[in-house]
Amino acid sequence: MPDYQAPLRDLRFVMDEMLDYPGHYARLPGLEQASPDIVAAILEEGARFCREELLPLNQVGDRQGCRLENGEVKAPEGFRDAYQRYVEGGWPGLAGDPEYGGQGLPQSLAMVLSEMVCATNLAWGMYPGLSHGAADALRAHGTEEQKTTYLAPLVEGIWTGTMCLTEPHCGTDLGLIKTRAQANADGSYVISGTKIFISAGDHDLADNIVHLVLARLPDAPQGSKGISLFIVPKYLPNAEGQPGERNSVACGSLEHKMGIHGNATCVMNFDQATGFLVGQPNKGLSCMFTMMNAARIGVGIQGLGVAEMSFQNALSYARDRLQMRALSGPKAADKPADPIIVHPDVRRMLLTQKAFAEGGRMLVLYAAQLVDVTEHSDDAAEREHAETLLGLLTPIVKAFLTEVGFEAANEGVQIFGGHGFIQEWGMEQLVRDARITRLYEGTTGIQALDLLGRKVLMSQGESLKLFTREIHRFCKSAADDESLKGLVEPLSRLNAEWGELTLDVGMRAMQDREEVGAASVDYLMYSGYVTLAYLFARSAQVAQQALASEPSDAAFYRARLDTAHFYFQRLLPRTRAHAQMIKAGAESLMAMDADDFGLGFEI
Amino acid sequence: MPDYQAPLRDLRFVMDEMLDYPGHYARLPGLEQASPDIVAAILEEGARFCREELLPLNQVGDRQGCRLENGEVKAPEGFRDAYQRYVEGGWPGLAGDPEYGGQGLPQSLAMVLSEMVCATNLAWGMYPGLSHGAADALRAHGTEEQKTTYLAPLVEGIWTGTMCLTEPHCGTDLGLIKTRAQANADGSYVISGTKIFISAGDHDLADNIVHLVLARLPDAPQGSKGISLFIVPKYLPNAEGQPGERNSVACGSLEHKMGIHGNATCVMNFDQATGFLVGQPNKGLSCMFTMMNAARIGVGIQGLGVAEMSFQNALSYARDRLQMRALSGPKAADKPADPIIVHPDVRRMLLTQKAFAEGGRMLVLYAAQLVDVTEHSDDAAEREHAETLLGLLTPIVKAFLTEVGFEAANEGVQIFGGHGFIQEWGMEQLVRDARITRLYEGTTGIQALDLLGRKVLMSQGESLKLFTREIHRFCKSAADDESLKGLVEPLSRLNAEWGELTLDVGMRAMQDREEVGAASVDYLMYSGYVTLAYLFARSAQVAQQALASEPSDAAFYRARLDTAHFYFQRLLPRTRAHAQMIKAGAESLMAMDADDFGLGFEI
Repeated sequence: MPDYQAPLRDLRFVMDEMLDYPGHYARLPGLEQASPDIVAAILEEGARFCREELLPLNQVGDRQGCRLENGEVKAPEGFRDAYQRYVEGGWPGLAGDPEYGGQGLPQSLAMVLSEMVCATNLAWGMYPGLSHGAADALRAHGTEEQKTTYLAPLVEGIWTGTMCLTEPHCGTDLGLIKTRAQANADGSYVISGTKIFISAGDHDLADNIVHLVLARLPDAPQGSKGISLFIVPKYLPNAEGQPGERNSVACGSLEHKMGIHGNATCVMNFDQATGFLVGQPNKGLSCMFTMMNAARIGVGIQGLGVAEMSFQNALSYARDRLQMRALSGPKAADKPADPIIVHPDVRRMLLTQKAFAEGGRMLVLYAAQLVDVTEHSDDAAEREHAETLLGLLTPIVKAFLTEVGFEAANEGVQIFGGHGFIQEWGMEQLVRDARITRLYEGTTGIQALDLLGRKVLMSQGESLKLFTREIHRFCKSAADDESLKGLVEPLSRLNAEWGELTLDVGMRAMQDREEVGAASVDYLMYSGYVTLAYLFARSAQVAQQALASEPSDAAFYRARLDTAHFYFQRLLPRTRAHAQMIKAGAESLMAMDADDFGLGFEI
Repeated sequence: MPDYQAPLRDLRFVMDEMLDYPGHYARLPGLEQASPDIVAAILEEGARFCREELLPLNQVGDRQGCRLENGEVKAPEGFRDAYQRYVEGGWPGLAGDPEYGGQGLPQSLAMVLSEMVCATNLAWGMYPGLSHGAADALRAHGTEEQKTTYLAPLVEGIWTGTMCLTEPHCGTDLGLIKTRAQANADGSYVISGTKIFISAGDHDLADNIVHLVLARLPDAPQGSKGISLFIVPKYLPNAEGQPGERNSVACGSLEHKMGIHGNATCVMNFDQATGFLVGQPNKGLSCMFTMMNAARIGVGIQGLGVAEMSFQNALSYARDRLQMRALSGPKAADKPADPIIVHPDVRRMLLTQKAFAEGGRMLVLYAAQLVDVTEHSDDAAEREHAETLLGLLTPIVKAFLTEVGFEAANEGVQIFGGHGFIQEWGMEQLVRDARITRLYEGTTGIQALDLLGRKVLMSQGESLKLFTREIHRFCKSAADDESLKGLVEPLSRLNAEWGELTLDVGMRAMQDREEVGAASVDYLMYSGYVTLAYLFARSAQVAQQALASEPSDAAFYRARLDTAHFYFQRLLPRTRAHAQMIKAGAESLMAMDADDFGLGFEI
């Protein structure tokens, strides 16, 4: 069975030594309570919970899946108990609003814990995970009464939430939604329609489920401007706020999926269910975006968690498995063969996983600080700066980290050889579970359009400049450090090229809008590699400085430096391909008539 | 349910118009019977068989898997019947030795049919697929008596074969094998040991199973020089050559796998089973390599089949699925949204699949001609040339086509969005099934070492020069064709660079053998992209020439040209990354101590 240890040492390095989390928490109003001691205690306890409670259920959940019995969904064995202990431990409300029962600790801290949850049990993690989005939407757009009734139990975790967006004929294009809402005399609404792909849509973990549902009012404008957001609870709360009458919303069937079998992906039927409008009529999509931004970062963290999990187990296998001798001569002459970690190509795969895990962690923690600032800074200019930067980085966190997380999971299978394909070892489950992360909450293609089209080009490149200027300042400040030359010089070149490529696409897009879509995914991947290069260069600077004082754990800092150099030597060159493909333009994509794609096989 | 049509038009283009298969068959002694009419009839009938018999069983096999009941393995519903019809149709012996019941048609033709089988039902295809390797080994190394007894029923397909190599502690490193063989007085042997990952190790499709087993004789030299090859039939043939007494070899358990559920992957226990030596004692590994080379090309074809299958179904979905408007304005104004094939990024994914399928098909058909020449040419120099070139291309066919086949299958899932993750649509099965192809018959890493270490560097680059000279001649001959400039010039540059990179690695490897392993996988991928670039440039030349005569199906040729240009614009730039990573050398891979990889999480 796969094992897992939370990367506490690496987290300490990134949080304390690189990104000054202690100072960050100390200066933000409301986050002062997150002292180093408190943070350390929470991370250790979270690590224990994930390893002891969630990890043992990961393969069980994959094998058993969920069952639909008499119209109710049962999660796999042990899922409910683990969730109850999660609630008893106060984990759901860690970063929740204290006014509604939360502990008011930093969002960034919850995100660190989320990495551990995603690493040990992605499917389980989605039950509490979806609640955060629902709570965010209610906090931002709900009435006081709605907050008291629904937000508090969501924050405590005694109820969970869902996001009911997708319908059979529309996923990306929510303007096509057909689910209907009709006002009742008492101010409530009647909701009718079918939603699909509803994660945690029904289950037996919590006492009630709060569905947030997109639907269309009578005479609403067509398309995305005519969509409203509704609360539809599974059980209608009674006068005491307890789950009362059963609402007419039910799971029609469970999807059979490639992975995340432990999570219930439901077809949800709303059959004249009772709902309550959230926010303004016809403004539902923008309310939903409140949920979606946080959810997108959450999915990026799933990619990170899977990468770390796969890395840890592949490393352990590569040290144990004896196969062939090193090309340069035996390294374990006393054994029948050398452990496969001696082989350079196995090291290449392990270091690829390690670099994506460490790089992803730095990116998540960098973005997480921005989240804290947007929520807690009392300086409006600082908040705006953080919001813009976070807007730029969100599609990168979501799409880049899930793309490379999937790659890391596949490297894990590859390191195990044939054993990687066998379920028992747990490595192939990581690939199957990770596969969804490139799809849900907006595919990689959608994230790429968001990044290049909405965030970069619509701001005339201003949002990007916020970031490239920061990178430029770093490069200038580190330019004289001989030991960092191999990193800072290429980073500086790429940073300049990033702007040039943006300008190039922007100019072409003025002639032909399709140029945006033609460049977008390569642009996103390019951006991700440069972003990680920046963070690896910073981490190398920190590691160099730490080494200067000859610390007792010098080996840790040297390994961090080696990983940074590996990243620049063996992963960053991928930007050469992406840059060339960005420049290639739309022509070769648009030339072929849609009717002609199949002429090789169509009769 | 996924659909499939054999790419007969594309096959005709590659075989007849590009690679002159009619002339190739006409001039090779023994293959004259493969006239254009015969070939066309066989391809059409094969296409029908795959579509009507195998395709409907593909999802059934995935869902049901195999069962072990009372020590016997049952394949999924319908698998046996389809196999019986396959045998009745004479398919197993299509390219088999006429002396042993085969039809003596070209191996290349069998390989074309294999693409269709792999596309429609990879798991089923492995039952007959493994027999070919066993038959090859017996034909090359068996005694007359062994051939009469075992080869003939294998060729006819009434028995099937296996390759029993791997043991729990050794896959790649067969020198570690522990299975023992001891001579009996009558010339037979007693075989004892456990083999794992035995594809089609037991099943109910055929009357008998011929296991080819690697084992160690008493006092055999240590390591790979002490391994011998044995026939161990499931049922010992009686005097009439019919299955007689049950041998003591049995399936101990079935592996639970990520994919290819329809194929029985068995732990095989040999408990003092009766076996018969094939070839010389202690020369078993080289006998086994006879099987493995053909099997490796076979696995490359699996990658191709999956790419084509995924492409066809993603294309169909992309034409039907309505979602969002084109960025440049509505294309299907009468519908609620445009079909997603209007979006450049969806086209990029479709064209990636299409290019890998068409490129892979050209590579397989190019290699298949070399197979025919090695077997049938009466010119020793021509045979040697073909053997060397085939040796060079075999690891590329195996590893490159499975790597890009897996990528194509993943693009298929991505085009389907969330629906791609749902089993019913069949797209995620292709990813799971394809995942094994990067592992078995030697992982991508092993193929890469074979290519760079054994094939290229051990021949002092001579084998590579055979191929780069051919590419060079093509580029020279096409240099004046204005319409091909965008292809021939970059191809020519890459072809020169290929030699330079080889020299560069070769020089470094003289100082440090680890440089070979450090460069190998990037070198293999680089080689694959250049090889496909050569074939796409040739295909473009042929398509241009065909268009000059204004054919009625000009659209087919234009689409072929467009795909070639897409390949050069949007896939070939990946060589820029691989070239840089090849040059990066071993240092960043070897710097870290094996103990230090886990310092971020190990306590």
